[in-house]
Amino acid sequence: MFKLLFLLAALILSSNASVQDFCVADLKGPESPAGYSCKSVTNVTVDDFVFSGLSKAGNTASIIKAAVTPAFAAQFPGLNGLGISGGRLDLAPGGVIPFHTHPGASEILLVTQGQITCGFVSSANTVYLKTLKKGDLMVLPQGLLHFQVSDAGYTSVAFIFFSSSNPGLQITDFALFANDLPTKLVGATTFLDEATIKKLKGVLGGTN
Amino acid sequence: MFKLLFLLAALILSSNASVQDFCVADLKGPESPAGYSCKSVTNVTVDDFVFSGLSKAGNTASIIKAAVTPAFAAQFPGLNGLGISGGRLDLAPGGVIPFHTHPGASEILLVTQGQITCGFVSSANTVYLKTLKKGDLMVLPQGLLHFQVSDAGYTSVAFIFFSSSNPGLQITDFALFANDLPTKLVGATTFLDEATIKKLKGVLGGTN
Amino acid sequence: MFKLLFLLAALILSSNASVQDFCVADLKGPESPAGYSCKSVTNVTVDDFVFSGLSKAGNTASIIKAAVTPAFAAQFPGLNGLGISGGRLDLAPGGVIPFHTHPGASEILLVTQGQITCGFVSSANTVYLKTLKKGDLMVLPQGLLHFQVSDAGYTSVAFIFFSSSNPGLQITDFALFANDLPTKLVGATTFLDEATIKKLKGVLGGTN
Amino acid sequence: MFKLLFLLAALILSSNASVQDFCVADLKGPESPAGYSCKSVTNVTVDDFVFSGLSKAGNTASIIKAAVTPAFAAQFPGLNGLGISGGRLDLAPGGVIPFHTHPGASEILLVTQGQITCGFVSSANTVYLKTLKKGDLMVLPQGLLHFQVSDAGYTSVAFIFFSSSNPGLQITDFALFANDLPTKLVGATTFLDEATIKKLKGVLGGTN
Amino acid sequence: MFKLLFLLAALILSSNASVQDFCVADLKGPESPAGYSCKSVTNVTVDDFVFSGLSKAGNTASIIKAAVTPAFAAQFPGLNGLGISGGRLDLAPGGVIPFHTHPGASEILLVTQGQITCGFVSSANTVYLKTLKKGDLMVLPQGLLHFQVSDAGYTSVAFIFFSSSNPGLQITDFALFANDLPTKLVGATTFLDEATIKKLKGVLGGTN
Amino acid sequence: MFKLLFLLAALILSSNASVQDFCVADLKGPESPAGYSCKSVTNVTVDDFVFSGLSKAGNTASIIKAAVTPAFAAQFPGLNGLGISGGRLDLAPGGVIPFHTHPGASEILLVTQGQITCGFVSSANTVYLKTLKKGDLMVLPQGLLHFQVSDAGYTSVAFIFFSSSNPGLQITDFALFANDLPTKLVGATTFLDEATIKKLKGVLGGTN
Repeated sequence: MFKLLFLLAALILSSNASVQDFCVADLKGPESPAGYSCKSVTNVTVDDFVFSGLSKAGNTASIIKAAVTPAFAAQFPGLNGLGISGGRLDLAPGGVIPFHTHPGASEILLVTQGQITCGFVSSANTVYLKTLKKGDLMVLPQGLLHFQVSDAGYTSVAFIFFSSSNPGLQITDFALFANDLPTKLVGATTFLDEATIKKLKGVLGGTN
Repeated sequence: MFKLLFLLAALILSSNASVQDFCVADLKGPESPAGYSCKSVTNVTVDDFVFSGLSKAGNTASIIKAAVTPAFAAQFPGLNGLGISGGRLDLAPGGVIPFHTHPGASEILLVTQGQITCGFVSSANTVYLKTLKKGDLMVLPQGLLHFQVSDAGYTSVAFIFFSSSNPGLQITDFALFANDLPTKLVGATTFLDEATIKKLKGVLGGTN
Repeated sequence: MFKLLFLLAALILSSNASVQDFCVADLKGPESPAGYSCKSVTNVTVDDFVFSGLSKAGNTASIIKAAVTPAFAAQFPGLNGLGISGGRLDLAPGGVIPFHTHPGASEILLVTQGQITCGFVSSANTVYLKTLKKGDLMVLPQGLLHFQVSDAGYTSVAFIFFSSSNPGLQITDFALFANDLPTKLVGATTFLDEATIKKLKGVLGGTN
Repeated sequence: MFKLLFLLAALILSSNASVQDFCVADLKGPESPAGYSCKSVTNVTVDDFVFSGLSKAGNTASIIKAAVTPAFAAQFPGLNGLGISGGRLDLAPGGVIPFHTHPGASEILLVTQGQITCGFVSSANTVYLKTLKKGDLMVLPQGLLHFQVSDAGYTSVAFIFFSSSNPGLQITDFALFANDLPTKLVGATTFLDEATIKKLKGVLGGTN
Repeated sequence: MFKLLFLLAALILSSNASVQDFCVADLKGPESPAGYSCKSVTNVTVDDFVFSGLSKAGNTASIIKAAVTPAFAAQFPGLNGLGISGGRLDLAPGGVIPFHTHPGASEILLVTQGQITCGFVSSANTVYLKTLKKGDLMVLPQGLLHFQVSDAGYTSVAFIFFSSSNPGLQITDFALFANDLPTKLVGATTFLDEATIKKLKGVLGGTN
Repeated sequence: MFKLLFLLAALILSSNASVQDFCVADLKGPESPAGYSCKSVTNVTVDDFVFSGLSKAGNTASIIKAAVTPAFAAQFPGLNGLGISGGRLDLAPGGVIPFHTHPGASEILLVTQGQITCGFVSSANTVYLKTLKKGDLMVLPQGLLHFQVSDAGYTSVAFIFFSSSNPGLQITDFALFANDLPTKLVGATTFLDEATIKKLKGVLGGTN
């Protein structure tokens, strides 16, 4: 009797062989609008589903005294196609993650150390601003401008999670000043004066 | 005049040449989170959209006196990307399809012969249980545990349909016992005693 | 010890009370683009998930010698929001389900009795045509024109399933002739002559 | 200080290198249900996001005195995966875009010259019909039959936009008559008489 | 015989009565994440699907010498749930639509008069910039910063279309300066100096 | 000049008044398949987007020496419709979160204290098992069975995030034993013996 059940198990197991429960990214295969190609299941191991890259602090020794470490599908291939991803924020005292958006996802932020002031701005230009303590969550709706600033005398840490395995990240200052968009055009489209633009282009590596 | 219309037809036909109405699976091409690659339209025939694999009874000569025959995109390539798939259940008298889930789809079951008792359990642990006759439909919401048992003195047959071309199938007993997950860990995470686990591991081909 | 576990069970159960596994349609509540409002879970019973309306043959005593019986969310409220629905086709000898589309879903057809010729036409105007026997499946990609005709000397039956709980059904002849669209406009947009249009309008209850 | 910020910029820029904001179609790569493969970002230029193919009038010197020019992902690769596409209609006086559907998308029509009567038919066979002037928009829900006819003494122009980069286009007359579907079967499934069918098959290049 | 067909028509028509082909917004009913509630089909007329609000030029007599007129579901209720919407841009000579994003949609821009320079910036901070002539289309991927500036000696006009009936619109300058976000916080999160921020807050009606 | 810009700001602001960036749940309004109804924007405050319910440890004084605290849309209304949610796991030494699934979402687990062994089982019954340290992430694909067990001599803590604002939670033992499903039926569909079932039913509050 047990033998028959065993045979059935074998049968069903084999018929399941091609079921696609997940699609670990093959970063070198062709990409589609749905994400990366899938690595062959025979080559998948548990390590494809585990990511240790957020366990260490990012380097906050920069002018913003802060660091963002992404864990998107490009860094963590097991996420590909699963509609979720993560990242880590480190903010030294005085640290700032400047205004930015994630074009493709909503975000949840979890403070795990220190205290962080987080704000987002709606399409109606209303500001939603809160100082978050350890263990607090804040949700930031898809595509809206937001920022984080340290509010502690020591390093604050937050982990962030997204409703897409490829949320994108567009830092407003970088988008405006860290490229070759002509100063005049930046001025016309931001209302900023030429001197301000040229200064920020200089800092951020922009030209023109 | 007709000639002109004909020309137009030719024109529009050619501009349509690359329109993608469907994406018959090329099972050997790269996979993406959206499914299999598409076979070239020039090689597609009506037989890609027809599947006869459910026309014969599955083999119920096993301990569960039942059989599941899938018609997912891997078996029926024309389904790829169309958000639907099917399958067949055969239950000899006393037959049972044990508790299982489809991680990626809701299901409709149609009884075409005999009588079948079907039940599912909600997240609130409520049981929804019904004995179905020929021609009855029952819908089983996505991802919830469910089962089917024969309720007739002769073979019962049902056809099942899913809201995905790749619904998945996870049979609880097989997931728990038909692999190398250590007995101790199975015990800790199911509250079952070691003897019970070892017996089921034995039956289902599990180790450790 | 057991008491504690029981307490935990109670706790988790209560925290699950508002989890939404399904959304049985409240046909009288407000509708949204996602479907009908949800009936209160406390009023949901297994009968919301079971539908017996397809167990009897449709009435084929009409000129098309065929009948379509829908099991969409409006008829079978348990389907609401679950991305799947069904229906039944009865075709007496010589019966025909005329050309139609489902604007919002792909379809699988399962023949359960007799023999049916089913065809669909792609955007490139290619015809995919097959005579199906008992147990055969055929998939019809979303939104494309298709039809079914009896191919047996006795009544044929098929069950149909859709990748949406609200697939829609637009029968081409009815859309063209069973309303008040002026005959001239129908002629201009179909290339049919006035006499043909007027005759079909007469048959199908159209005016103008 | 600026140097440090610059370093950060470099860092974040590099970590963003693989972010997928868009997926310009590589028309020769493998296709998936989600669309075409993505062209390598290093080869993408602004011209991938610009399409000038709609700036000239289509050729209306045909029997329908009208032309449809598509700007779908196959013609305009930058659209791939972005959920939007377009097209252009030119209608000389008396021009007609015959009854058709887009199986995969809703449509907005914008009249930019002349006057156009546009109608669509719902699943309930209700006609929604309106004569549109320059600057008017009309929305046509997904998959429903619709048409456009000139209502001006000079050429009318409309631009059309879709809720998919691959909306599809199925012109009813072409689907019914511009292929090898046997005349008898067309008759049975449309209620049209043989003479009418044979005439239209002749005009549109159909056989059988 | 015709009578029977007519009866069938009546039957199928009635069974279709509750089919939901569209969901015209009832702006006063409850909203859901999927959009506005649906107006009762009995109250729907063709005018719900037509919008004339873009046929007149927007008022460009402002400092930006430009105007944006939205045709989203809130203005054009027929769009609700159909995954598409529109708008109109008017740019007098020297006119500018400042940097902005649409958090919930990709956009296609169609120039119908004059000449417009349009640019967007990717997550990798690359600028995609093009001067567009009448009839040109440009696609702007979801959520990315973009702008439009007049490039003609007379008024330019563009129509814009979105892959959502509710794309959102966040103008960067307004989000940063047209609210009560404290100047210090704006400075820290944009690298702009206090004087610049205070000036722009003054212009745009911001405080703090 | 500034006055004009200010006027424009006012204009655009007002036209944006009805833009729906988010849909904070009104837990008492009608639900749809897309989630809860939206609270009026005028009543929304930043506190709707912040949740402090995970900042305290769950009560691990139960037989499983562990606790799950959900932060789904029902507990954290700001998440409604945003495609993301969270939760917290506390595991005392020897603590176990028994086998369970989330029918509607993929999950990322982040260990913030201690050490946790986490495993999931694929449809092919392969076990993916890993001991995670502080700062490690593990992703668990949608709908698949998984568990967590403490691997430290002191309390371990993890935060979990989901690709849906309503992921669901079905604990296998509770689904099988914490209800009135007849013992015989549980036996037939799990291969467990009656004594085992009755014992677990007793512990978990099941009957029959």
